[in-house]
Amino acid sequence: MAMTGVLRPGHAQIRVLDLDEAVQFYTDVMGLKETGRDKSGRVYFKCNEEQDHNSFILRKADRAGMDFFGYKVLDAAALNELEGKLNDMGVGTERVPAGDLLETGERVRFQVPTGHTIELYAEKTNVGNGLGYVNPEAWLENQKGINPVRMDHALIYGTDIDGTRDIFEKALGFSLVERALLEDGETDLGTWLTCSHKAHDIAMVRHDENDKLHHVSFMLETWEQVLRAADIMSMHRVSIDMGPTRHGITRGTTIYFFDPSGNRMETFCGGYQWYPDMQPNTWTWDEVGAGVFYHDRKLNPAFLSVVT
Amino acid sequence: MAMTGVLRPGHAQIRVLDLDEAVQFYTDVMGLKETGRDKSGRVYFKCNEEQDHNSFILRKADRAGMDFFGYKVLDAAALNELEGKLNDMGVGTERVPAGDLLETGERVRFQVPTGHTIELYAEKTNVGNGLGYVNPEAWLENQKGINPVRMDHALIYGTDIDGTRDIFEKALGFSLVERALLEDGETDLGTWLTCSHKAHDIAMVRHDENDKLHHVSFMLETWEQVLRAADIMSMHRVSIDMGPTRHGITRGTTIYFFDPSGNRMETFCGGYQWYPDMQPNTWTWDEVGAGVFYHDRKLNPAFLSVVT
Amino acid sequence: MAMTGVLRPGHAQIRVLDLDEAVQFYTDVMGLKETGRDKSGRVYFKCNEEQDHNSFILRKADRAGMDFFGYKVLDAAALNELEGKLNDMGVGTERVPAGDLLETGERVRFQVPTGHTIELYAEKTNVGNGLGYVNPEAWLENQKGINPVRMDHALIYGTDIDGTRDIFEKALGFSLVERALLEDGETDLGTWLTCSHKAHDIAMVRHDENDKLHHVSFMLETWEQVLRAADIMSMHRVSIDMGPTRHGITRGTTIYFFDPSGNRMETFCGGYQWYPDMQPNTWTWDEVGAGVFYHDRKLNPAFLSVVT
Amino acid sequence: MAMTGVLRPGHAQIRVLDLDEAVQFYTDVMGLKETGRDKSGRVYFKCNEEQDHNSFILRKADRAGMDFFGYKVLDAAALNELEGKLNDMGVGTERVPAGDLLETGERVRFQVPTGHTIELYAEKTNVGNGLGYVNPEAWLENQKGINPVRMDHALIYGTDIDGTRDIFEKALGFSLVERALLEDGETDLGTWLTCSHKAHDIAMVRHDENDKLHHVSFMLETWEQVLRAADIMSMHRVSIDMGPTRHGITRGTTIYFFDPSGNRMETFCGGYQWYPDMQPNTWTWDEVGAGVFYHDRKLNPAFLSVVT
Repeated sequence: MAMTGVLRPGHAQIRVLDLDEAVQFYTDVMGLKETGRDKSGRVYFKCNEEQDHNSFILRKADRAGMDFFGYKVLDAAALNELEGKLNDMGVGTERVPAGDLLETGERVRFQVPTGHTIELYAEKTNVGNGLGYVNPEAWLENQKGINPVRMDHALIYGTDIDGTRDIFEKALGFSLVERALLEDGETDLGTWLTCSHKAHDIAMVRHDENDKLHHVSFMLETWEQVLRAADIMSMHRVSIDMGPTRHGITRGTTIYFFDPSGNRMETFCGGYQWYPDMQPNTWTWDEVGAGVFYHDRKLNPAFLSVVT
Repeated sequence: MAMTGVLRPGHAQIRVLDLDEAVQFYTDVMGLKETGRDKSGRVYFKCNEEQDHNSFILRKADRAGMDFFGYKVLDAAALNELEGKLNDMGVGTERVPAGDLLETGERVRFQVPTGHTIELYAEKTNVGNGLGYVNPEAWLENQKGINPVRMDHALIYGTDIDGTRDIFEKALGFSLVERALLEDGETDLGTWLTCSHKAHDIAMVRHDENDKLHHVSFMLETWEQVLRAADIMSMHRVSIDMGPTRHGITRGTTIYFFDPSGNRMETFCGGYQWYPDMQPNTWTWDEVGAGVFYHDRKLNPAFLSVVT
Repeated sequence: MAMTGVLRPGHAQIRVLDLDEAVQFYTDVMGLKETGRDKSGRVYFKCNEEQDHNSFILRKADRAGMDFFGYKVLDAAALNELEGKLNDMGVGTERVPAGDLLETGERVRFQVPTGHTIELYAEKTNVGNGLGYVNPEAWLENQKGINPVRMDHALIYGTDIDGTRDIFEKALGFSLVERALLEDGETDLGTWLTCSHKAHDIAMVRHDENDKLHHVSFMLETWEQVLRAADIMSMHRVSIDMGPTRHGITRGTTIYFFDPSGNRMETFCGGYQWYPDMQPNTWTWDEVGAGVFYHDRKLNPAFLSVVT
Repeated sequence: MAMTGVLRPGHAQIRVLDLDEAVQFYTDVMGLKETGRDKSGRVYFKCNEEQDHNSFILRKADRAGMDFFGYKVLDAAALNELEGKLNDMGVGTERVPAGDLLETGERVRFQVPTGHTIELYAEKTNVGNGLGYVNPEAWLENQKGINPVRMDHALIYGTDIDGTRDIFEKALGFSLVERALLEDGETDLGTWLTCSHKAHDIAMVRHDENDKLHHVSFMLETWEQVLRAADIMSMHRVSIDMGPTRHGITRGTTIYFFDPSGNRMETFCGGYQWYPDMQPNTWTWDEVGAGVFYHDRKLNPAFLSVVT
């Protein structure tokens, strides 16, 4: 098989301070589709093109941030094999029973050295993207809001990004695509890894607190959609952190913005195609600004400090 | 590993009637980069973003068409394993020595039931895309012509597309992404398969002659680049077969056009992301026109008949 | 004043065979806004950005085509002065009383040598574009259909296009922007004229029947919107005549398509800016195909023959 | 005539500190075409689509800024008539002889109350845009740099913007398109005026120094070209002040950046079409940030203070 093991980022569970306000934001402004609510009050969403039941889950809490980030794997055999590799590396795993998340099978849950909870799962009900599988139209009319194609990746912040990267590479089969170096020219400030030929399926930045979220990213199809997203943010008085601009790293175009609870989100477009035979890019400390924000070639103060 | 076995379409060798005219066309109009010529007179090209030495090779001959289409695989072990799977299915293989193609390692060559010669290889010299791997700029200035990102896929025509598909699926690990049915509602007119999360890495259409090429496709990044490509074709009096338009199948935007020898080529943009847990699309005979040319919803006469 | 006399194309009245079907088409597919109906049953529409009450009017009739095409002029004084110039040229005029068209002032109506009825008027109620005039947002969310910016121009067919052009130039102050020549290298096949710095505000093609409509054109803002328009046409099974493609003449991008009554309409984007000190372009007979459809460089059979 | 009197912004003469560095910047990065140098050492440029000999002139000086901004008028009669209107308003005029600027006829020069030198002229040699006037191709291949379509407008800063606006409106026939108010809700912070159906041909902001330049703007055709421009600026380490983003005022998309002498320039795309029968927009003091930078909805500190 050409795509095996971990397939793609599958779900992110996000903490919000006011659930109604958050649901309204993610529905009307982001244009996600609500697909369900569970007994514990969590609200489930999927993006426009996604076929699986959910990719983004909101949980009411007293502080913002991300509970966990999950990857879909090829099948049950892959789930077992990947759990075995995690255990072989000394990473403890827990099985969360099927149905704990709506329409989602059993999950293998574990903690990475940066303190984040990562999950793997093989089953999530295919509810379709509304176009059907016979003679489908090209897209669905009359969608609202920013309307991203899919949940694309997350950037996480924590202390031991080397340890977390090690697990993603050695147990989960991810590859290094880009890295940014600290002033010493050796230590990674951040790394961008993929499990596919997308430019990144996870990214991590070194930070003195653990289990922090920098952003969850949603994919848009064109730079014109990025402009449209920024316009919609303005119309709804969304706080934009940065953009529209381009990243040097991955070359994607981007807007960073904050949801009503202060979680940073991204709308992202493009990024080159990467294959595991290619050579990773390195960004040196003096050019890391260009790596993050290609046009301004300098970091904005919020990039390294504001996380949830 | 998340991407294993066959990585991507790696090279196509195309026959042209007049080498100088073809080189000029692929250099000035298509904007490919010539990277070398070998003793037998073949001319090698790569696309703008490609890091490997070559992806498109021209050979002078007395009739147009495609000599072979090659896929890069992860490594030598994958090459051996894939050859084993081919042999297990009764597909005879031949080893073409390293160096037969410039800067390219040993190739495993075999014939599929539609008569086409397919190759696998693990090594091709990384010559880079000219941006370097340290603090790279976003793109190279002052490129000429249509300047595609990469060689993307091919569509082949032949009698036994079921047999060819079988080999791509069972030996090479490809997955079915879309299919178009004949009037009987059962037999495939054509199938679109992937070895990645691109919408297609090979496609095949049922036809009464074997070893025929419908087109080799080159990827562009945006719909505006597709317009620009059509403009450049017009300026250079290139014969456009169809487009700019959209395919229903894969949803990509497209132009079909002919090189000076009559080989149909495509500039392609977009197409959705596909993963092996997703459900393939089916196009019924009455809507196959919309599958191929989404806007007109009918085939043009050349689509099913003109091949090289 | 820098813009004086005739300001812009202001309204077109179109005959349709089935009013309900036409209203549904122009509302749901084209995305025009219905702004009123009058006692005689005519239905009035405006486009998304237009501030005046109406720009497109449907009248039920037993054959398709255009009743009249109207231009808004700067003010009542300009209306009188332009009427005087028409009369001085021997063009008879008629005053249609205010209110005959909803929310529209008195109109000066006259016939041009190609048999078309042209109107001038100075008053039409400003109903706004829905954004207001104080701190307006950039655009209105949740619009449906193709949603053009404005009604842009018309292309009319008739015998004596020299005579009609003469009136547009000498009485109405239009300028010649482009012309296409017949085989004799002298006679105009067609001419494109402007009263602004748009590439055209009227166009006319020589044809053996009078008072014929080739198309009314609606402006879109981007090439991506042109793709989106073609997608929407496909979803609604609209008959596309040609496109998406580019015109050589004006350089605009275009789709020609037919409404349910067989009237050809266009969605148009771009076109260069023209000023009256610039030199017009000429297209010779052998290249008129490239003038009309720049990519294919040949006319489709419908272009010269199908009119309503 | 539908376009009479003042046609369009025709030329800007800019002071630069280092001529060679400036020429290199405007040639290689901006992609302007050098069309000549005069005896006094001034260097002349035109933009890609412009047909007149020059639109942008560099003069070496010991401080940056703009010497004068000129408008092309319809013909010699219009020049005389406009000079008459200026004199009638008490604005003194001077005739600069033909040939003082290369390939440019006699100019009527005058000072507006904000201290800026404005010029009118009727003649500048048409050197063409390189496409010819017979069967022209859609655009010129192999251009370099940002390659704007035309010089579009200027934003000037000075004390008495009411007086300057008065002259533009009453003598030159410009119309008010948008205004931004100060905290008192009455006084204009700035006004945007047009002499065509472009959203602006001049803009002025109230400031405590006279004869200051905020920026000269160059038009691009698409938002994708705006991204490309920002990329090229980054590659050449151009200092970007703001963008890519959208203006609320005019709705155009924009990048503000600085030339090597510190003159702010803009690449601009879009903006709605305006006609003199339309109602101007007003931006209140609390929303002026959104008027200038629509996405961030706040001014950056440089906007009101950094001028040359």
